[in-house]
Amino acid sequence: MTLDLNSDLGEGFGDYALADDAAMLDVVTSANIACGFHAGDPAIMRRTCALAVEKGVRIGAHVGHRDLSGFGRRAIAITPADLRDETLYQIGALDGFARAAGDRVRYVKPHGALYHQAAADPALADAIVAAMRELGAELMLLGPAATALERAAVAAGIHFIGEGFADRAYTPEGLLAPRGLPGAVLGADAAVAQALSIAHAGKAVGVDGGQVAVSAVSICVHGDTPAAVEMARRIRAALDESGTPVRAFT
Amino acid sequence: MTLDLNSDLGEGFGDYALADDAAMLDVVTSANIACGFHAGDPAIMRRTCALAVEKGVRIGAHVGHRDLSGFGRRAIAITPADLRDETLYQIGALDGFARAAGDRVRYVKPHGALYHQAAADPALADAIVAAMRELGAELMLLGPAATALERAAVAAGIHFIGEGFADRAYTPEGLLAPRGLPGAVLGADAAVAQALSIAHAGKAVGVDGGQVAVSAVSICVHGDTPAAVEMARRIRAALDESGTPVRAFT
Amino acid sequence: MTLDLNSDLGEGFGDYALADDAAMLDVVTSANIACGFHAGDPAIMRRTCALAVEKGVRIGAHVGHRDLSGFGRRAIAITPADLRDETLYQIGALDGFARAAGDRVRYVKPHGALYHQAAADPALADAIVAAMRELGAELMLLGPAATALERAAVAAGIHFIGEGFADRAYTPEGLLAPRGLPGAVLGADAAVAQALSIAHAGKAVGVDGGQVAVSAVSICVHGDTPAAVEMARRIRAALDESGTPVRAFT
Amino acid sequence: MTLDLNSDLGEGFGDYALADDAAMLDVVTSANIACGFHAGDPAIMRRTCALAVEKGVRIGAHVGHRDLSGFGRRAIAITPADLRDETLYQIGALDGFARAAGDRVRYVKPHGALYHQAAADPALADAIVAAMRELGAELMLLGPAATALERAAVAAGIHFIGEGFADRAYTPEGLLAPRGLPGAVLGADAAVAQALSIAHAGKAVGVDGGQVAVSAVSICVHGDTPAAVEMARRIRAALDESGTPVRAFT
Repeated sequence: MTLDLNSDLGEGFGDYALADDAAMLDVVTSANIACGFHAGDPAIMRRTCALAVEKGVRIGAHVGHRDLSGFGRRAIAITPADLRDETLYQIGALDGFARAAGDRVRYVKPHGALYHQAAADPALADAIVAAMRELGAELMLLGPAATALERAAVAAGIHFIGEGFADRAYTPEGLLAPRGLPGAVLGADAAVAQALSIAHAGKAVGVDGGQVAVSAVSICVHGDTPAAVEMARRIRAALDESGTPVRAFT
Repeated sequence: MTLDLNSDLGEGFGDYALADDAAMLDVVTSANIACGFHAGDPAIMRRTCALAVEKGVRIGAHVGHRDLSGFGRRAIAITPADLRDETLYQIGALDGFARAAGDRVRYVKPHGALYHQAAADPALADAIVAAMRELGAELMLLGPAATALERAAVAAGIHFIGEGFADRAYTPEGLLAPRGLPGAVLGADAAVAQALSIAHAGKAVGVDGGQVAVSAVSICVHGDTPAAVEMARRIRAALDESGTPVRAFT
Repeated sequence: MTLDLNSDLGEGFGDYALADDAAMLDVVTSANIACGFHAGDPAIMRRTCALAVEKGVRIGAHVGHRDLSGFGRRAIAITPADLRDETLYQIGALDGFARAAGDRVRYVKPHGALYHQAAADPALADAIVAAMRELGAELMLLGPAATALERAAVAAGIHFIGEGFADRAYTPEGLLAPRGLPGAVLGADAAVAQALSIAHAGKAVGVDGGQVAVSAVSICVHGDTPAAVEMARRIRAALDESGTPVRAFT
Repeated sequence: MTLDLNSDLGEGFGDYALADDAAMLDVVTSANIACGFHAGDPAIMRRTCALAVEKGVRIGAHVGHRDLSGFGRRAIAITPADLRDETLYQIGALDGFARAAGDRVRYVKPHGALYHQAAADPALADAIVAAMRELGAELMLLGPAATALERAAVAAGIHFIGEGFADRAYTPEGLLAPRGLPGAVLGADAAVAQALSIAHAGKAVGVDGGQVAVSAVSICVHGDTPAAVEMARRIRAALDESGTPVRAFT
């Protein structure tokens, strides 16, 4: 058994940068690349795709709301029709850079507020999946298991990749505990332990102190600080040593 | 011998619309579709691609500066590297909708200020052509003949389609006379006559009263007013009757 | 007693236009001018302010979500802090053009989705009012009476102007019936009658056939079609003749 | 005699940040604050204005092209009419936050490509000055002396503040040497010496090794790296000790 590591990359814009993408591309196996709506621009998309291909990391389209000033973190009451169109636009744009780098977009992951909206709303989940199907490719969908996103993918014959978080506690319902709650964000040691627990036992820390079932074949790690990159490295090393080596999902 | 008719379409944004696209798609054989930078948005791109396929009209990417407020009509001192990236982004995004409609993007035409900048600046022309080649497709380039655009396409092995204008007078150098000049904009009768003259003699009206050589296998027509649509219909009818029927270039 | 007529103006962007603003400025007494977030741009703001001052129409800031592609009609989960900042930005920007035209921004009206969000959510209503107070001016707030907007204004010592709609039926709770419901949109004759009924009896048509209390000292009319402008003219004429002449609120 | 120090601040956007604004506000006397076109957003504008007022730093509007993706560094062929409108919009928006913080916008400085375009093009310089005059305030203009900007200000009765750069060599014509040229960017020691030389002798280092006359009552310093902030502190200390203390221009 293996586990995938994914991270949000290419999240700068123009002269702005948020994270050390090159460092993270040495750690992860899947790169969720912003497509210019909530973050990212053509130059960054080209650079990130080229670097991902160079390092053997899989390219995914990190599709978000058209909300650069809110970084895609604010829920927007988008219609399913508009979401379908914006999803198709973003995947198509990124696929150009993936092709230029010698690969293709392999999967899609919704970003930020859209991630949570589409996990809860079947019409939005269906819209994302409908856009994926229109591209006629073998696209996979990466997101939270046991949600509208998984159901929409399965119903459409799209391969679904369940995702877990190493450094976040979960609610009893299996959702991420809001960052504001005490205990919602785990330290580095706890995050390493949680990655192993998700990998081997399918269980994560509950914000209430208990354990929560989390079905994941990919773990999301962050690269927005040097400490975050170091945590990601430790998670990868721990997984590799534990008999569940980190490999891209297939 | 045949002649192509092309028109700029999909130039709305959100609730805004500029022209009667459905009417023009009954007249032209090639649709230059805006890709969201100077105009257009995902919903309009989908609708316009679907309509083009339904009516048997060829889909082209109308690539422009990222300048919605200036409609792409203002020169921007873009670097060749940025232009290459923005071109790739726009073609990729439109190609998603073309594929969803059952076709592909078949050609590229620069829009507005970029049209004139790239016709004059070899580095910008090369940047557009480089992005086209990266997509690995059989893309053609539509633009003014005997310019940096044609030279860049030929040098790269890209098929080039020379374009003429029916309703505009030309300078002695073969460029479009600026709209402000007296006599620069032709009326409907003169535009029909010029389309026939370009088709059969390779000559257009010079703004100085003479004649100017114009090498064109496609004529650009406009749809921004009912009178413009009617002029386009007359041009098509005149060409069809003259023994140079309107057909998409190949 | 008098009644004010207000209309949403300056809603174009760049080359795009939605309505015949000059015609509406001959009919209304208050102009809700878009400030560049959901619609409008600096050139349009200047033109609309200048025309309003020329025709003696009061200038109001039509404050909306930063969502040009959605025309401000999609709810966005904005924080009160961000809304306060975006409101201050928009009023300040428009006030520059109002001052250039020889007047000032006199009132604020939230637009589209923000109108409904702020009417229902006290924190958002307070954010709008807080920004208004920061400008230290005698700004008034225009919106639906008996909502969070009115309560926030009253609590802050801001003069509130209740608004009614001539051409829309109301729910029993005094809210606008959604456009999709049968009977929600009134024809011209019914709209004229409703304007008179709101003016003289404080009552509007209920979507259930009954009557609904509507407290309004301003009636909103639209200018997006020639028929809409004509309806607005008829409403103004009917009010003027009925003994409740149309005058700007004070 | 005194000298002013100015710096470009508030240049982030959303979650993005470029510099340590708080540190620079302890060093400079004038803050050129981005207004949301090339950088900056309402939340950042509020924060930067509040911090400037708290630290006794003068607020200026750093007016730029509407080009977030190019950070305002690309020349755009804007018309004087559009530039006048965009300038008025940006000053008005920033003035709202300045007023909320208890002060007003005191001066205007063009940013990036616009700085160079307006220094060379009288029509653009006049457009900026025309917008300033429309606000009817005592606005001053900060920019390069002996250019179209100074001439436009003087002709309009606007107080002009000549600006010099401590860490850049000059061409014989008194313009900044392009960054790419050898010797164009000075190290910390040379920058301190140049600030003193501008202050006391009105002379700067020429890129050809000679000396160039630079008329400046304000020196521009940068805060984009910790080393840049430290250089700015050294320049301020050296000026204060040299008998030309750093004070805001008046």
